[in-house]
Amino acid sequence: MAATRTRKIQILHTLLRAGDNRRLRRTLARQDDVQIASQLDNLDVEDQLRVMQLLPNDRRPEVVEAMRHETAAELVARLAPEEAAKLLDELEVDDVVDILGRIDEEQLRQILGRLDVDDANELEELLAYDENTAGGLMSPQYFQISPDATVGDALSMIQDEEEPPETAFYVYAVDVDGRLVGVCSLRMLVISRPSEKIRDVMERDVVRVTADTDQEEVAEIVSRYDLLAVPVVDEFDVMLGLVEVDDVVDVIREEATEDILKMAGAGEELAEARTFSGSFRVRWRWLLAAAAGGTAAALSLSGFDEALASVPALAFFMPVVAGMGGNVGMQSSTIVVRGLAVGFVEASRVRRLVVREVSLGASLGLIYGLLIALASVAVGEGVDPLRLGAVVMLGTAGSMTIAAAVGTCTPLVLDRFGVDPAVATGPFVTTSVDVMGLIFYFWLATVLIGI
Amino acid sequence: MAATRTRKIQILHTLLRAGDNRRLRRTLARQDDVQIASQLDNLDVEDQLRVMQLLPNDRRPEVVEAMRHETAAELVARLAPEEAAKLLDELEVDDVVDILGRIDEEQLRQILGRLDVDDANELEELLAYDENTAGGLMSPQYFQISPDATVGDALSMIQDEEEPPETAFYVYAVDVDGRLVGVCSLRMLVISRPSEKIRDVMERDVVRVTADTDQEEVAEIVSRYDLLAVPVVDEFDVMLGLVEVDDVVDVIREEATEDILKMAGAGEELAEARTFSGSFRVRWRWLLAAAAGGTAAALSLSGFDEALASVPALAFFMPVVAGMGGNVGMQSSTIVVRGLAVGFVEASRVRRLVVREVSLGASLGLIYGLLIALASVAVGEGVDPLRLGAVVMLGTAGSMTIAAAVGTCTPLVLDRFGVDPAVATGPFVTTSVDVMGLIFYFWLATVLIGI
Repeated sequence: MAATRTRKIQILHTLLRAGDNRRLRRTLARQDDVQIASQLDNLDVEDQLRVMQLLPNDRRPEVVEAMRHETAAELVARLAPEEAAKLLDELEVDDVVDILGRIDEEQLRQILGRLDVDDANELEELLAYDENTAGGLMSPQYFQISPDATVGDALSMIQDEEEPPETAFYVYAVDVDGRLVGVCSLRMLVISRPSEKIRDVMERDVVRVTADTDQEEVAEIVSRYDLLAVPVVDEFDVMLGLVEVDDVVDVIREEATEDILKMAGAGEELAEARTFSGSFRVRWRWLLAAAAGGTAAALSLSGFDEALASVPALAFFMPVVAGMGGNVGMQSSTIVVRGLAVGFVEASRVRRLVVREVSLGASLGLIYGLLIALASVAVGEGVDPLRLGAVVMLGTAGSMTIAAAVGTCTPLVLDRFGVDPAVATGPFVTTSVDVMGLIFYFWLATVLIGI
Repeated sequence: MAATRTRKIQILHTLLRAGDNRRLRRTLARQDDVQIASQLDNLDVEDQLRVMQLLPNDRRPEVVEAMRHETAAELVARLAPEEAAKLLDELEVDDVVDILGRIDEEQLRQILGRLDVDDANELEELLAYDENTAGGLMSPQYFQISPDATVGDALSMIQDEEEPPETAFYVYAVDVDGRLVGVCSLRMLVISRPSEKIRDVMERDVVRVTADTDQEEVAEIVSRYDLLAVPVVDEFDVMLGLVEVDDVVDVIREEATEDILKMAGAGEELAEARTFSGSFRVRWRWLLAAAAGGTAAALSLSGFDEALASVPALAFFMPVVAGMGGNVGMQSSTIVVRGLAVGFVEASRVRRLVVREVSLGASLGLIYGLLIALASVAVGEGVDPLRLGAVVMLGTAGSMTIAAAVGTCTPLVLDRFGVDPAVATGPFVTTSVDVMGLIFYFWLATVLIGI
């Protein structure tokens, strides 16, 4: 039942602050690798190093393996190359690749130079793949066998392997050219007669991906087909490696985080937000868009200075007109962005989607416009309350209708042109909706109040 | 390589529109179950029914199993109870529970009444668990054995099972009282001598969850421990079932979607957004908060009518002052909400987080405030441009600082009080930031321009 406490315990942090190394050692001995790792993920790299020092040598690799790759990379970058190489040598290859992929070139050379030559070569090959593709995720460790071998051969191969991948429950059949021709689950091997040919018991219809398949697509396939692992092949169908479901689980979480942060214009990784400079760098750009849009709004609105001078109450309702639009726009664009990401947007029925969102924006706009207009009576001195009310009501409705249309169409159009629809949908939609909604509102005022 | 096309093909939709049943049948024969299912997920229920009619009987359960539970439930709800029962009888129990959990009471009774009594009882028991807990996710099908049995016994048990769960790669050891005492992987069984006792080869330290463990926690545990399945036990440690990694993958995606939608105040499930009425129902509430906030802003700002009357240019910069605040607020709250969700926020170092976010807001605010103030020279007729510039600059900086503070602290406080921090953080933060930012801006104006 130990596991159910992974999230909340932060005892290491408290003990580190108290500087009590004896209690720290005792606590570390009591906790499992994952519990320690999940706390290390939330500590400074200095504190991480202190904890590593206190851990027995044989536990260090296990703990690092259970850490997030971002934080593990921070830690590894601080170790002497010698020490880093010794540690990484104990980890599974795909984890090493994920960690080393985040370390700078110079340090990487130093660490690779201290590893066994074959290992270093293998790592360099794997590091050459884009980290966001199947190639970047895959592990080169898997069981393969000829389709002409027997079930007994396959079982002895598994029995003889001293350090098999932990989740090795499949044996892949490859022909003489290395091409993937089938797969046998360990269960299938156990229930078949040892003398049977692999060819006769294997599943021939193997779902596979190529090394350049985007990791989001890999996740979609593993999730849709309920796979525990998916083989990675090259353009000739030659098997290169295996992506396992535990790595896919990490990808799904990372991609969801990336989408959420991108939509808000707050970067792509939570790790970037860990430092002032990292945060500043990823955020200023999207704010630039908002500032430019807002300045454009100021300049456009300056054309309405007479309207404002004669009916100052118009200004009081600007925040609510723009804000209601911004909120509806975010609702619409969030639904479309997420729907596109998980394949749950009626891509074939775009027209219906747009019509529904726009009519939602319009109806919600009329209802809320009416409610807000009622408040306008309280503040509109020196102006016909009915007219001011009409401007506020129709202005809100118009702003919300425009917002629903912009919020729905922006991500759809980006997707059509192959641009990630999550990219700063938030800042873009809210800013453009502000500008358009307010111009409409003031235009209404000049027409209806007759300024 | 068929799998790499799951996302984009929408051929069924085209053929359904054309009404060409012969080509539809041919296409269905060429596609695999998952390809068909992922298209059905994006079709009307009417079209789903037509496709089901055209599918051979034996493929229907496989296709329904590969569909999303939400859409499968829509489809099942439209079938005659007889037909629904026949279909569900072929699916895995945990999928049936997920589908039936979304169907209304009356129909559920009708379908259960047409199933085998034992199956119906088992389903009713499982349906009693909260669908967002381990109990609601688990499957009651798994291999269990006495720790006193031998490896050979375990292997024959697996060999004799005619319809084992697809991903059954573990055998759980339970004592005479049904308590979970260990686990053996199929690989361990294969490499051990058949005469060895399970007790001597099993792993005793089994990570487990209880039936009422929240599904988010289950996902965190499976992901952190890299498990393929996690056993579910009751308060006496008696084993009740098994949550498999493929279901966890779905949970992680659902939870991410839920967080994204909640933040935007756009409901919890994409399926809700499928209809006008569903969308309307989930959205109007959060807009009510925004409307109330906006109206409150209008009333508070009406106190500044003299300032506005004498310097109308102040109004032009309201959108950019409020908008920059809204954007920074969303950035901060998004980072905190997502960080809390994936356990990657320095919960133990909240003070540092708040200080960093607020200082980011202030520095970005001063920079952008300066840039926007430069534009104020262009529009500020009849007012000292330096003073107007100072108001715009300090107003923007103030609004952004307030926004960063509110955006960071709101989710942290909600989390501390046990409320889901994602709930409508968006509408709440943007609206409260609008109100506070603008009041600060006008207060500055009265002080600096001396109105």
